[in-house]
Amino acid sequence: VSDLTPLGPGQEFDALRDLVGRWGDAAQGIGDDGAVLAVPAGERIVVSNDACVENRHFREGWLTPEEVGYRAVTAALSDLAAMGARPIGVLWAVNVPQRWRAKLPAIADGVRDAVRAVGTHIIGGNPSASEELALTTTVIGAARTPLLRSGAKAGHKVYVTGLLGGPAQAVVAWNAGGSPDAAQRARFARPAARILEAQWIAAHGGSSAIDISDGLVGDLSHVTAASGVGARVELERVPVMAGVTPSAALHAGEEYELLVTAPALDEREFSARFGIPLTLIGECTADRSVVVLDRGRPVEPGRTHDHFG
Amino acid sequence: VSDLTPLGPGQEFDALRDLVGRWGDAAQGIGDDGAVLAVPAGERIVVSNDACVENRHFREGWLTPEEVGYRAVTAALSDLAAMGARPIGVLWAVNVPQRWRAKLPAIADGVRDAVRAVGTHIIGGNPSASEELALTTTVIGAARTPLLRSGAKAGHKVYVTGLLGGPAQAVVAWNAGGSPDAAQRARFARPAARILEAQWIAAHGGSSAIDISDGLVGDLSHVTAASGVGARVELERVPVMAGVTPSAALHAGEEYELLVTAPALDEREFSARFGIPLTLIGECTADRSVVVLDRGRPVEPGRTHDHFG
Repeated sequence: VSDLTPLGPGQEFDALRDLVGRWGDAAQGIGDDGAVLAVPAGERIVVSNDACVENRHFREGWLTPEEVGYRAVTAALSDLAAMGARPIGVLWAVNVPQRWRAKLPAIADGVRDAVRAVGTHIIGGNPSASEELALTTTVIGAARTPLLRSGAKAGHKVYVTGLLGGPAQAVVAWNAGGSPDAAQRARFARPAARILEAQWIAAHGGSSAIDISDGLVGDLSHVTAASGVGARVELERVPVMAGVTPSAALHAGEEYELLVTAPALDEREFSARFGIPLTLIGECTADRSVVVLDRGRPVEPGRTHDHFG
Repeated sequence: VSDLTPLGPGQEFDALRDLVGRWGDAAQGIGDDGAVLAVPAGERIVVSNDACVENRHFREGWLTPEEVGYRAVTAALSDLAAMGARPIGVLWAVNVPQRWRAKLPAIADGVRDAVRAVGTHIIGGNPSASEELALTTTVIGAARTPLLRSGAKAGHKVYVTGLLGGPAQAVVAWNAGGSPDAAQRARFARPAARILEAQWIAAHGGSSAIDISDGLVGDLSHVTAASGVGARVELERVPVMAGVTPSAALHAGEEYELLVTAPALDEREFSARFGIPLTLIGECTADRSVVVLDRGRPVEPGRTHDHFG
């Protein structure tokens, strides 16, 4: 990655220059038509993008501007975690309406904090005027052997990282006109991308991974569909935040914990290393259906989380 | 790049599945949290993104939905051309309001045509509901030695590809309530990313490149600022489309021809190979100012094109 290159005149460039100045050493290589990255021999690159649109993915009163930026970028970084990749750069496109313009520096601070949290850099940006605040983050990562959704096999165990359900519960509270529990709110506002955790899982035999952005059952269905297997989950094993029921957590999206499969993982070693639990919740099966059992009784799966509805 | 991976249930996934089905073999590797790409040893990757927002970058009546998709993706691919990189994949994020939903397949057709035109693939997508149509395209390319803005040296010659000014003139006609000239409209609606041309230029000693998305003077200023040089351009040499004056072309953005510098390039070999002109328009100077001469008399540079105004 080259050093910063001076930009020419123009208001778009002034905006970008302001952002780059604000980002300091969190930004690298901005100023050419594209950013240049070297990829170590033997590694493949992993790329993904994610959009965060005002009133679709959050409402203005829910988050500070910093949190808007932090969450949007972390959501995209979480895709790299799901692939077991380490981030090597972030491109950030922001469509800014006039009424958000004064908050753009604070949003950019959140972007900076999110890339710093995972040790990567902002390598490109595209500010545009708009009527609606929309952030589109592209993440570039590298991995020797990326974790795919398609690697689960019948008999592999199903695990989740962390405690589920907090972010969705915060949204429920906001939508009801209330204030969410502080811990639940924090998981929505400043989620963590499980980058290092995923690399550990990949190195310890993980066979598939996905982040739980669409809800546990929905995302498990993606994995089983891609892998050509089914899965059985035991409801009482699903790890939840205080104030959340396991049933609510089944379909709670908006969070970035990982759902992984593996022949076997050492939960204690994981939690000793990362300070969050890794919990065995079920097993992959040969019959291609996803079943959740509540003390042996199958529970009806509900609707999955859907940003396009 | 792996083959398509089945997705799970949900309306967002249905939308993505529809797009992927429509794209056919123009899409590859969609369905995991990220797309995986191999980078040949000795090459670096080049990444960039570009936003296209309704009523900022185009108006609904100007373009067919196919052209909206084609132009948005080509604008991003043009950044790879400016870097002398060959495309290895495209990520496409689309924020779709309800009133555009029925046109999404046609927009997607234009996206497919644009990636096919340069021999690459759509490797990821992110559809989201919104109030405003906004397309954010991320392009990933590879190059052994990317062309930067910073390589121009005093004494290097300044060239442009193609004929300038058509797209901006089409916008002038639309904004005046008229219909643009067909050839000018076509350059706006279905621009070409000069991918192969740029690779030829890089292989023949090109020292810097930029695409003329912000106008010739504005983009030349980016190059000279990054390179620590100035430039002198002769107005009468600026190649223009029929119906456009060289003066208008100086500040006409919205197009994706390349501005390049090099010790010397063979214009005839270039045009014989690519069917478009390569025109010598001036020279880099040591004094750091950008001057346009009209028969020896300096012309005042005007405002540069600015999407953020």
